[in-house]
Amino acid sequence: MLITESRIAVRYAETDQMGVVHHAVYPVWYEVARTDYVAQALGLSYAEMERMGVMTPLSELCCHYAGSARYGEEILVRVWVSRLTPARIEFCYALHREGEEKPFHTGTTLHGWVDTKTFRPLNMKKKYPALYEKIEALAE
Amino acid sequence: MLITESRIAVRYAETDQMGVVHHAVYPVWYEVARTDYVAQALGLSYAEMERMGVMTPLSELCCHYAGSARYGEEILVRVWVSRLTPARIEFCYALHREGEEKPFHTGTTLHGWVDTKTFRPLNMKKKYPALYEKIEALAE
Amino acid sequence: MLITESRIAVRYAETDQMGVVHHAVYPVWYEVARTDYVAQALGLSYAEMERMGVMTPLSELCCHYAGSARYGEEILVRVWVSRLTPARIEFCYALHREGEEKPFHTGTTLHGWVDTKTFRPLNMKKKYPALYEKIEALAE
Amino acid sequence: MLITESRIAVRYAETDQMGVVHHAVYPVWYEVARTDYVAQALGLSYAEMERMGVMTPLSELCCHYAGSARYGEEILVRVWVSRLTPARIEFCYALHREGEEKPFHTGTTLHGWVDTKTFRPLNMKKKYPALYEKIEALAE
Repeated sequence: MLITESRIAVRYAETDQMGVVHHAVYPVWYEVARTDYVAQALGLSYAEMERMGVMTPLSELCCHYAGSARYGEEILVRVWVSRLTPARIEFCYALHREGEEKPFHTGTTLHGWVDTKTFRPLNMKKKYPALYEKIEALAE
Repeated sequence: MLITESRIAVRYAETDQMGVVHHAVYPVWYEVARTDYVAQALGLSYAEMERMGVMTPLSELCCHYAGSARYGEEILVRVWVSRLTPARIEFCYALHREGEEKPFHTGTTLHGWVDTKTFRPLNMKKKYPALYEKIEALAE
Repeated sequence: MLITESRIAVRYAETDQMGVVHHAVYPVWYEVARTDYVAQALGLSYAEMERMGVMTPLSELCCHYAGSARYGEEILVRVWVSRLTPARIEFCYALHREGEEKPFHTGTTLHGWVDTKTFRPLNMKKKYPALYEKIEALAE
Repeated sequence: MLITESRIAVRYAETDQMGVVHHAVYPVWYEVARTDYVAQALGLSYAEMERMGVMTPLSELCCHYAGSARYGEEILVRVWVSRLTPARIEFCYALHREGEEKPFHTGTTLHGWVDTKTFRPLNMKKKYPALYEKIEALAE
């Protein structure tokens, strides 16, 4: 199974008055890391995928906050594909502080395969079989 | 059971290049609606609660996207307390388009009761019994 | 001269670790207030204006921070049109705390009139003369 | 004069329904690049500077939008100190698309030197003479 790693430096604007990163920032970081996954795994950018005709809007998001991140820290985000069907793809995320084995934050996102023009669900396995098999192999 | 209602006008900045509200905006809207719930239900602002010594950082967030919101729309957010213990509180959210019975988006947030100064968990039932009972009654 | 007023409740997510609203939030508030101006002044939403074929992307933004806003406050945003030409429109903003005469924050935004489809500048006076005259009258 | 360079990959969440980066994102990018400037120039992080007792809240922000950035692009942000007094510091920003000589966006931010504890202005030259002289030398 392919696991990609992205490093994200916490932005000042991402903190809130509690002194830590605001909880709504994490899905944005997932997205940054997912963009890296797609680029590294599939050899094409998500922007190109959209132009090709495929979008992956979210249908579910779950975040588990065991700890928090602070301005000045660099966060390591690990991403992998946890589920794949012709209709959907699920990603998992584990966020680590440098040098810590255990993630302080985990999450999942479930996405539908959707046609960019019609905004309708598409059967990824039928429409883009080569790409689908590639992801299938990486997710194993 | 108390259910409060908040109305949120979609901001242009909240849309993304898909033409709809970006998925990371929803937890921010939950927070706006939760602030209204606290004010209406408890008769004190969340800002006052923080100054009083209580914070409620998130431990879990789940969002279910059945549809999407667009710039120019006003969204109705319904909030209620779905679970209450001396250590935690859970809120549920249902988002409706004006005049639609069925929500196009639902979510939950689970929060710990935390001491503002020590950042440590606190026993809400023991520390603030009157406030705790008030919430308990509203959650039934 | 028409001056519209919008009321904005500070969101928790808009604060940063300094304990006040992050400086990059103000242009978002301008936009919210500008949307209200357009709706009140022109009797059509900015969303409709975009569908009609007109966009107003920013060419300049200036913000003056004399004070700061905090979570729990409601901010009054006053907006007016300070300049109008066939190619451009400039808005001014003054932000007040409830009951304070003097604004704690002011700003301006300069926008081009742009065709939604071609992304090219358009001559607003020629293309939409009735709308242009209406704005001209309100700006005096 | 020291000019530092930061590379920022455009995030999907930073786009809006116009299909380009929302205008309120640029001050956030300035801040990311400013953080890099402080780290490279002064050999200490802005987070450390805050803990040391110095904050630099904005008093003015100006942005000039000649073009726009899109998801999938990497933006080069150049930063330098354009003005320094015992009370204030001004930064300039020039944003370039990879391989383009001319910036598509420029900006400035003016900051006060402020005491972290009292939130009061401080005389940087008197309070931290060594740091002040270091910045003075880099700004020439």
